[in-house]
Amino acid sequence: MLKNKMTQLLKIEYPIIQAPMAGGITTSNLVAEVSNAGGLGMIGAGYMTPNQIREQIKEIKQYTSKPFGINLFIPNEFAYTDSEVKLANQVLKPIRNQLHINEDPNLDIPTCDQVFETFNEQIKVIIEERIPVCSFTFGIPSEAVISELKQNNIFVIGTATTVEEAVEVEKSGMDIVVVQGSEAGGHRGNFISPSQDSLIGLMSLIPQVVDHVSIPVIAAGGIMDARGLMASLCLGALGVQMGTAFLTCIESGAQKVYKEAIMHAKEDQIVLTRAFSGKWARGIKNKFIAEMEKHEDLLPDFPVQNALTQPLRKASSAQQNADYLSLWSGQSPRLAKNQTVESLMKSIITEAKNINNSFFRY
Amino acid sequence: MLKNKMTQLLKIEYPIIQAPMAGGITTSNLVAEVSNAGGLGMIGAGYMTPNQIREQIKEIKQYTSKPFGINLFIPNEFAYTDSEVKLANQVLKPIRNQLHINEDPNLDIPTCDQVFETFNEQIKVIIEERIPVCSFTFGIPSEAVISELKQNNIFVIGTATTVEEAVEVEKSGMDIVVVQGSEAGGHRGNFISPSQDSLIGLMSLIPQVVDHVSIPVIAAGGIMDARGLMASLCLGALGVQMGTAFLTCIESGAQKVYKEAIMHAKEDQIVLTRAFSGKWARGIKNKFIAEMEKHEDLLPDFPVQNALTQPLRKASSAQQNADYLSLWSGQSPRLAKNQTVESLMKSIITEAKNINNSFFRY
Repeated sequence: MLKNKMTQLLKIEYPIIQAPMAGGITTSNLVAEVSNAGGLGMIGAGYMTPNQIREQIKEIKQYTSKPFGINLFIPNEFAYTDSEVKLANQVLKPIRNQLHINEDPNLDIPTCDQVFETFNEQIKVIIEERIPVCSFTFGIPSEAVISELKQNNIFVIGTATTVEEAVEVEKSGMDIVVVQGSEAGGHRGNFISPSQDSLIGLMSLIPQVVDHVSIPVIAAGGIMDARGLMASLCLGALGVQMGTAFLTCIESGAQKVYKEAIMHAKEDQIVLTRAFSGKWARGIKNKFIAEMEKHEDLLPDFPVQNALTQPLRKASSAQQNADYLSLWSGQSPRLAKNQTVESLMKSIITEAKNINNSFFRY
Repeated sequence: MLKNKMTQLLKIEYPIIQAPMAGGITTSNLVAEVSNAGGLGMIGAGYMTPNQIREQIKEIKQYTSKPFGINLFIPNEFAYTDSEVKLANQVLKPIRNQLHINEDPNLDIPTCDQVFETFNEQIKVIIEERIPVCSFTFGIPSEAVISELKQNNIFVIGTATTVEEAVEVEKSGMDIVVVQGSEAGGHRGNFISPSQDSLIGLMSLIPQVVDHVSIPVIAAGGIMDARGLMASLCLGALGVQMGTAFLTCIESGAQKVYKEAIMHAKEDQIVLTRAFSGKWARGIKNKFIAEMEKHEDLLPDFPVQNALTQPLRKASSAQQNADYLSLWSGQSPRLAKNQTVESLMKSIITEAKNINNSFFRY
C-alpha cells in the first residue's frame, strides 16, 4: 500500500522522509534511526562546515546500512550596509543584556565569496562520501552541480513552494520535488515568489503541483501522523517529509526546553518571522519574536541577521531559556509527542493501514 | 464509501456542501442543482434582506425537493469615526473617478442596531420557512437563537478557524463545525484568534480539531475535486465545503469576468486584503487591492468599509471590469473549471471511487 515509484527510487520501505532540520537537530542517532525504521533520515547540513559533514556521515554509516540523505542551502548573493548592522545591533542590545552577554566585536559576518566557497566544498564532501540522496533549499543548484551529483548516482531533490517553483525544479533535471506548504515550520523555501505570496496550504499546493510536473512530489508541512500521510497520498503526493514530528522525538538534538515549547504550543501561536535569520521562517511566538516585531522590516537579510543573532541563541540555549531561541515548528504542535523514532514510525504505518482498511472499504 | 454520520444527519447523499458565498453568487439554480446532485446547496444570505431571503427560499423549493441550507453573518458591535470615513472616501476618490461615479452623499452606513435587527428578522424568516440547515460565520449566535433553531428541527452549523474556536462552537450546542483552512477564499471566519494568527492550513487544522471535538467536522479551503475530498476524509473530516469550485460553475451568479479571472489566476496571486469590506478576506490581487495596500491599516472596519466600497464594486461589475471587483477565491484556482454543477458533482464522485479502488487496494 505504501510502496511506490518514490520508495523504489530512494530504496526505502516507507514514503516518509525526515526533514533536514538545520542547527543541531538532526543528530546521527536521529538520522540513522529514521533510516533503520524504513524511512529516509536526512542531515540538515545548511550551517555545517565540510569537515563536520564528513564526520557526521562517517558516524551515521556506523549506525545504519540503510540509505540516508543530506540537505544544503543554495547560496544567494547578498549585501548589507554598516548602518543596517549597527541598527540590528542596537535593537539586539537589550536582549544581550537580559542574557548577560556582550556584543562580540569580532563577530564573523560571512562574505558572499565565503558562502559560495563553503557550498562548493560541501558538495565535494557529499560526492566523496557517496551519500545517496542530496536535497536543496532556497533555490536550484547550477547545472554543473546537478549533473555531477547525478553522475555519482546521487538522487537530487529540490524544494518548491509554488507551482512555478516546482516546474523550475523539474526543468533543472532534479529527480524529486518537495513541496513546502504554508503549514511548514522553519525557513520558507521560496525562491521565485515573494515569501508572503508563497504561503500556499498543502490542500491547494499538492494537487496543483502534481498536475504540472511529472517527477515525484513529496509533501511537507504540518504532517505528523498517518492521517497527514494518507491525505498527502490522496492529493497526489508520493510521500511526505516530516519535521516537527521528528524534532520532538527522543533522538533529536533539540533542547529539552524547545521540545517542551512545541508540546505546549497551540496552532495559532505559531507565526512567521524574519527576526532570527533575515529570512522568513515559521516558529512559536516567544519573547524574541514579540520584541523584534516592530523592527522586522529594517533588519539585514540572511545570512547577516543570522550571524548577528547566533551568539544570542547560543546563550539562550545554554541557559535553557526558550525566550530567545528560534523555536521553529509547523502548524500542528498539538500532534507532537516525545517518543522514539521507532515508535513514531510504527504508529504511522499501523495507523495508515487502519485508515486504509477500516475507512475505505465500506 | 461516502456515507457517514454527517450525510445521515443532513439527509444528503454525498458529504459535499456548496459554500454559502455571499453577494449574488448562490443563485437559486446553483443551490438547487447542488442539492439535486446529492450535495447540500447553501444560500449565502449574509448581505440579504429578510424579504430577499424569503423569496429565494420559495424559489429554490420550486427547483428542488432535496434539503438545502442558508448562511448568516453573526453581527458584531462596531464603531467608526467621521474622520475614518472621510479618509476612506479620499482614498477611494481616484478609483471612483476611474469608474466615472461620484461619491454618494446619501450613502447608507448601517448602524449597529440596524445590523442586529436585520439578523433577528433573518432568523425569523428561516424558522418560518423551515429551511433544514442554517450555518453561521463570524461568531456564535446567542443561546436563545441556537435553541430556537434546534427546536424547529433546523441543523445549526458553526464556522471555526482554530481548535479553540471549534471547541467554542461545540460548547454552544451547534451540531456541526466547518473548519476554514488558510486556503479558503473570501472572508476569514475567525472570531477569537486575530486574523493573521488564524491562518492554519487544512493539513494541520483538520486533525487537530478532530482530536478536540466530537461533533462532525467539515473541511473548507482549497478543496476543488475528489483529491481534496478524500484527503479531508483521511484527515478525519466527515465532509467538505467547496466555494471556488462551485463559483466558476455555469449556474453560479458570479460575473463572467470574475469566473474568468479565477480560471486564469495562479495560486500565488491570491492574497489577503481588508480593503473591500474592512474584514480580512482572500481574493485575486487586482488593481483595487494593489492600490489600497498602503492604506489598508487605516480603513474603517466591517461593515463600514463594505458600505463605502459597495457602489464602486457595483459600477465595476456593471462595466464588466474586474479591476475593482472583489475577486474572492481559494488557493486552488488552477483546478477551477467552467462546467455544470451536475458535471462537477459527478466527476468528484467518480474520481473518489477511483482513488478508493485503484489507490488503496494495492
